[in-house]
Amino acid sequence: MNNPNDPQRMERIVSLCKRRGFIFQAGEIYGGLNGCWDYGPLGVELKRNLKDYWWRVMVRERDDVVGLDGSILTHPAVLKASGHVDTFSDPMVDCRTCKARLREDQVPEKNGAKQCPNCGGKELTEARPFNLMFQTQMGASAELESIAYLRPETAQSIFVQFKNVLDTARKKIPFGIAQIGKAFRNEINPRNYIFRSREFEQMELEYFCAPEQGMQLLDYWLEERLRFYENIGIPRTKLHVLTVPEADRAFYSKGTYDIEYEFPFGVQELEGVAYRTNYDLTQHQNASGKSLEYFDEETKAKFVPHVVEPSAGVDRTVLALLCEAYDEETVTDEKGKSETRIVLRFHPRIAPYKVGVFPLLKNKPELVAKAREVLALLRPHMMVFYDEGGAIGRRYRRQDEAGTPFGLTIDFETLGEKGEELRDTVTLRHRDSMEQERIAIADLLATLLPQVQ
Amino acid sequence: MNNPNDPQRMERIVSLCKRRGFIFQAGEIYGGLNGCWDYGPLGVELKRNLKDYWWRVMVRERDDVVGLDGSILTHPAVLKASGHVDTFSDPMVDCRTCKARLREDQVPEKNGAKQCPNCGGKELTEARPFNLMFQTQMGASAELESIAYLRPETAQSIFVQFKNVLDTARKKIPFGIAQIGKAFRNEINPRNYIFRSREFEQMELEYFCAPEQGMQLLDYWLEERLRFYENIGIPRTKLHVLTVPEADRAFYSKGTYDIEYEFPFGVQELEGVAYRTNYDLTQHQNASGKSLEYFDEETKAKFVPHVVEPSAGVDRTVLALLCEAYDEETVTDEKGKSETRIVLRFHPRIAPYKVGVFPLLKNKPELVAKAREVLALLRPHMMVFYDEGGAIGRRYRRQDEAGTPFGLTIDFETLGEKGEELRDTVTLRHRDSMEQERIAIADLLATLLPQVQ
Repeated sequence: MNNPNDPQRMERIVSLCKRRGFIFQAGEIYGGLNGCWDYGPLGVELKRNLKDYWWRVMVRERDDVVGLDGSILTHPAVLKASGHVDTFSDPMVDCRTCKARLREDQVPEKNGAKQCPNCGGKELTEARPFNLMFQTQMGASAELESIAYLRPETAQSIFVQFKNVLDTARKKIPFGIAQIGKAFRNEINPRNYIFRSREFEQMELEYFCAPEQGMQLLDYWLEERLRFYENIGIPRTKLHVLTVPEADRAFYSKGTYDIEYEFPFGVQELEGVAYRTNYDLTQHQNASGKSLEYFDEETKAKFVPHVVEPSAGVDRTVLALLCEAYDEETVTDEKGKSETRIVLRFHPRIAPYKVGVFPLLKNKPELVAKAREVLALLRPHMMVFYDEGGAIGRRYRRQDEAGTPFGLTIDFETLGEKGEELRDTVTLRHRDSMEQERIAIADLLATLLPQVQ
Repeated sequence: MNNPNDPQRMERIVSLCKRRGFIFQAGEIYGGLNGCWDYGPLGVELKRNLKDYWWRVMVRERDDVVGLDGSILTHPAVLKASGHVDTFSDPMVDCRTCKARLREDQVPEKNGAKQCPNCGGKELTEARPFNLMFQTQMGASAELESIAYLRPETAQSIFVQFKNVLDTARKKIPFGIAQIGKAFRNEINPRNYIFRSREFEQMELEYFCAPEQGMQLLDYWLEERLRFYENIGIPRTKLHVLTVPEADRAFYSKGTYDIEYEFPFGVQELEGVAYRTNYDLTQHQNASGKSLEYFDEETKAKFVPHVVEPSAGVDRTVLALLCEAYDEETVTDEKGKSETRIVLRFHPRIAPYKVGVFPLLKNKPELVAKAREVLALLRPHMMVFYDEGGAIGRRYRRQDEAGTPFGLTIDFETLGEKGEELRDTVTLRHRDSMEQERIAIADLLATLLPQVQ
């Protein structure tokens, strides 16, 4: 089960995510909405921690990056200029036998011919382009001009607002504009759980530079992004860097790396780092008639900036974090009975809850009161799960499944009943090793806070 | 200008927001997309701080609330059951003269008759319902079943996932499910800047309870929410609580309060706090055929929970924060010249940047190095703006306009050139009073951190 390529591993992860409240299917009680997912209580915290850490290292801790939050509904002219209206499509085929609608490049060949993966039928229609953008009608009239699209990527609002940001943020090239937000693609066949869904979230940086800086910054950002994944608990050894060959790159890109992760269903892209030249800004400058040039005060040069784009998927990174963290091991309980322990070994930085706080017994008011004190001490600084119910071993196990890195038990020692030297100390239990140590309540914040930030 | 009802006040606020990078019109270089807005570098931080504080007090610091993040694309059955497909509409009329499309309840009467506010025409069509939901086509086929809606409120995904959360989160009634996310309404006439837009963000809590707890919890949540606004800098005196009369309430609601704020364009709703009974869960239980009942282990009672909903608008709260913070005053500069100072008096907790860090002169490497040290000290804990350029007075003013509560200047005293007792101290300048004091670098974190959290 710990073999990352075990086909059952993915099923186990999906099952745990449902059972513990990480991820539910959208509209599940109505049969579900294909390709859309809701994040439950644990999932929403995991996702928040991931996004907050990205914002912290990509925006807050840098002098040269500012944020943006653009609207999802997008003016059609934006996506006409970017090329999405005309070319953002996948090749679609129909199976003439079972009528399944398929993405042509995902239909596997068998005996030299494409066969329907649904029914095995061999008669497929010719491939035709299917545009992946969702469109809707805006305003009360039904004229063509009132079409709006759901953005297929967050990047375009950055390009379209480049001049406004440049004029207001007092930044000189090279500088970046970062955005986290939802994007939408009408995938023909959503699959692999939250990996390829129709509604998803992106974390994108557009880093603007002079033309001669592009190739060097492409390599700089690749390294920065690899370091990011290491810092959230995805080891470098599980990441693959694919140098996208020229034939597979967008025609305007001078260089693209894909950062891939070893998912249980195969090695798949987590993030693309692309040197997009000045294609996007030039397209928008031409289509809008508004200058998107940059004037360099030192060199007196005027030019349309080039851009390097590290573009990460929130949901697929969440999935990578879950896959990386999931572990099963055989342990022996207090009574010597052997059992399977399921544990999510999240980096404390991204774990949904940082600490579980447990009074040993719930019917002892002094224990509960003391546990509540510990809770009040920690809660202003981190997510804490308070749990009074059941045997302490079971409470630990529940937090193992939630990925909570630390457990604190308030017991009779804490109350000073086993000697004064243990008064106001608690048991600190480590999720990964299951080792326990005694720690003074007064030392808790200083011990835990640096590990969870 | 400081009269909150001055009609020019709103124009000044909008102008500052554009000029300093709080808010831009979406797709502006293409003529703009009506009713959609992009948040610039300062706006995105302001909005993040507001949302983070809401999540902190509504989720993290409570035992009885967990979070959720549902998809925007929504199964039509969800919105059929909730009543939105059939009744979520505004009355629309056309002006026969100028063809303007108007929301009938917003057309003012003149001499006892409704006249077009656009052209003054008196011939308006009969009012007809216009459904406010955006719809789109999902999947590759164009059948009716493949319609999906953009959710018109975040609440419905909470109701639809109620059972999943109940089964996974180990919570007993009363408990709540909280969500922050985007929602969409195809307003006939978007207006008042970001107050009424077509794409907006909500912060909603659905707090589930036993029937007999509803009315009391309604009052409890009203008080909690009023306290929230005070804690982000909107004084109670500027808030109005409207007890919505029965005739104006949704038919299923047993009580609703509107929390209103004195915007420059009038007193308008910031948040609704509604006791929705068990209407929503009952509708979804009936339509889906899935039990959404709660079993109370103590009383052995089984029932569909009632719910109290505090539902706040992110964008309109951002607007209230901007309106409340905006101030102009006449001040005298160092040379005795009188000038107008524009200042955003944000509560430090929600201010986009917390601190400005300024080396007195940018061409003195020792000053710059020391300023960089201060920056590195503070940045892991808060948003810091670093600025080397121009006279120090101008740098202060720029941060006044951004609402940055504290400024730190690193000068020759800091380097110890005016005596050892001033070494490693900096000037701390307060935005609101413009008063300056000397503070040791070693004391900065302990002084500033509690004020900005």
